[in-house]
Amino acid sequence: MKPKVRIALDAMGGDHGPSVVIPGAARALAARPDIEFLMFGDEAIIKPLLAQHGPLAAATTLVHTDVFVKMGDKPSQALRQGRRNSSMWLALEAVKKGDADVAVSAGNTGALMAMSKFCLRTMAQIDRPAIAGIWPTLRGDSIVLDVGASIGADSQHYVDLAVMGAAMASIVFGVSKPTVGLLNVGVEEIKGIEEVKAAGRMLREAELPNLTYHGFVEGDDIGQGTVDVVVTEGFTGNIALKTAEGTARQLATVLKSAIQSSLLSRIGYIFAKSAFDALKAKMDPRRANGGVFLGLEGIVIKSHGGTDAVGYAGAIDIGYKMVKQDLLARIRESLTAWQDSRTAMAASAAAARVETETD
Amino acid sequence: MKPKVRIALDAMGGDHGPSVVIPGAARALAARPDIEFLMFGDEAIIKPLLAQHGPLAAATTLVHTDVFVKMGDKPSQALRQGRRNSSMWLALEAVKKGDADVAVSAGNTGALMAMSKFCLRTMAQIDRPAIAGIWPTLRGDSIVLDVGASIGADSQHYVDLAVMGAAMASIVFGVSKPTVGLLNVGVEEIKGIEEVKAAGRMLREAELPNLTYHGFVEGDDIGQGTVDVVVTEGFTGNIALKTAEGTARQLATVLKSAIQSSLLSRIGYIFAKSAFDALKAKMDPRRANGGVFLGLEGIVIKSHGGTDAVGYAGAIDIGYKMVKQDLLARIRESLTAWQDSRTAMAASAAAARVETETD
Repeated sequence: MKPKVRIALDAMGGDHGPSVVIPGAARALAARPDIEFLMFGDEAIIKPLLAQHGPLAAATTLVHTDVFVKMGDKPSQALRQGRRNSSMWLALEAVKKGDADVAVSAGNTGALMAMSKFCLRTMAQIDRPAIAGIWPTLRGDSIVLDVGASIGADSQHYVDLAVMGAAMASIVFGVSKPTVGLLNVGVEEIKGIEEVKAAGRMLREAELPNLTYHGFVEGDDIGQGTVDVVVTEGFTGNIALKTAEGTARQLATVLKSAIQSSLLSRIGYIFAKSAFDALKAKMDPRRANGGVFLGLEGIVIKSHGGTDAVGYAGAIDIGYKMVKQDLLARIRESLTAWQDSRTAMAASAAAARVETETD
Repeated sequence: MKPKVRIALDAMGGDHGPSVVIPGAARALAARPDIEFLMFGDEAIIKPLLAQHGPLAAATTLVHTDVFVKMGDKPSQALRQGRRNSSMWLALEAVKKGDADVAVSAGNTGALMAMSKFCLRTMAQIDRPAIAGIWPTLRGDSIVLDVGASIGADSQHYVDLAVMGAAMASIVFGVSKPTVGLLNVGVEEIKGIEEVKAAGRMLREAELPNLTYHGFVEGDDIGQGTVDVVVTEGFTGNIALKTAEGTARQLATVLKSAIQSSLLSRIGYIFAKSAFDALKAKMDPRRANGGVFLGLEGIVIKSHGGTDAVGYAGAIDIGYKMVKQDLLARIRESLTAWQDSRTAMAASAAAARVETETD
């Protein structure tokens, strides 16, 4: 019998806490019967909810705690008050101890990242962890990282993001050499930030076995799905993500009020309802819920704080896939390939220097 | 009699050159009869087009040149080959010499900015010029800058952008103290880039007479129209702009194909056509065509390269307003107020130090 996928849940995280986490977990379990849950949170709230979901109750070990990280807590505050005994910390610690394969939380992003770094530690080869998001595009989904963990980047950090994002993409899209683009302000080699340009040169020269370096991409390439993985640092990535979300909401609002404004268009809406439903389904943010923390010695999934059970089940499902396909091993393998390529490049550069000197 | 507004046109700029510039200018003139045009370009192409527009021909002085900056030219190349005699350069030079009040070009942005800096010079108090774009939002339009001229910024540059953007906003929106937000990754004071945080403190303390500092805003605040002016450096601004354009295009494509997919929804579309037309009109990029170069000793408007006559007329109209309301004087006035406030803050800080030392 194959081992089960053991998922630790911060049952108190998110705007709605257990009232979303429990039905979300039940949905996820219905689709993936080989999940085992380890839940951390307030027994008095969780137990009655679990009682409504028989199969979930049977697949769950509940650990009580009455300490919770609040959505508004600063990361430092969360670490001070919630370390060792909050539901968020305990979920991460379960991964660290090997009791769980992945932790999922809809709690405050800053606190979750701070605790993840503290509890699980950053991979030795990685400077700073990143958050990778799944972005719906015209060509299916893409992965965009970093969407908010690290601010600013040197060329090495951009390469790390490319390598880790490609490892995740190989799982999500089931391709062996995902295409990777560096987000820039122009596709010409002369434009853009020095660090991005240097990273582009490094990726081109390295010819890594696990990714296909596409070159620079621009903001409008994200929605077009030009590449599988879009790499940028966390400041720009977060602003791009929120700008896109804002634009989508803005268009929906304008369209809605335009349709409401006349009887004729309200009738038209009824006829065209299937089209609007298809649009809604395609752009449904719950479909792409679940940011993956990359660069840690453990797998952590961040669900949107305001999502519902469908969205939360999606975040659990992403975590499930990352475990099943061994995300950490893929990242390590890719980092080793990058390290080897760098060593080879340095050696050939040194050899070239020696040749020049002895000429 | 009031003096006319004298507008210099790079008639050869843009993807379509004179075939868009001439009808665009004719449209703009019909709305603003007090415009006089100075056009630079190929007589053989322009004269026959002018002949089709009697009133425009009467209001235009045509200066022949057969040197043009191409859309793909690098800025350095354009400067080398097109300085002194290209249609782009001559339009800028007309502003420098005082023969025109503003220059409008749909040519290559990098070349136009490089030539503008070289020909018109950057204002003494300003480090680097910026490009300000008009962004349609749920609350009307906002101004976003910088959308691509300068990459990276220190705190002083962010303040310069805020001051210049507010001066432009006071003209576009007709308000005396436009609201200004700094684009950041979180609204909490603890988050974000150090330089942005420092700029926020400076703007808050300065209490400038010509703008209302709102605080930090996030990516989704742009489309919501939370503030009149959104300030960021050119890398992030360009990516945010293109990401929003890409998202809008993506949604339009998905909606279109969903409507095409069934007879019922095609019928629904016909009923609801007025709603779709209203959406299209509201999000029409031609409405907001015309990037304003800020921080130069002269007014320059960049039209989208691919726009049509309606869009080009819009860019001319923005230039017209900037001249009529004396953009440069407003910027200088605001920069002086900022300078005064900074001197006062420094003096009071020095006084506080003296008091402490003599205590």
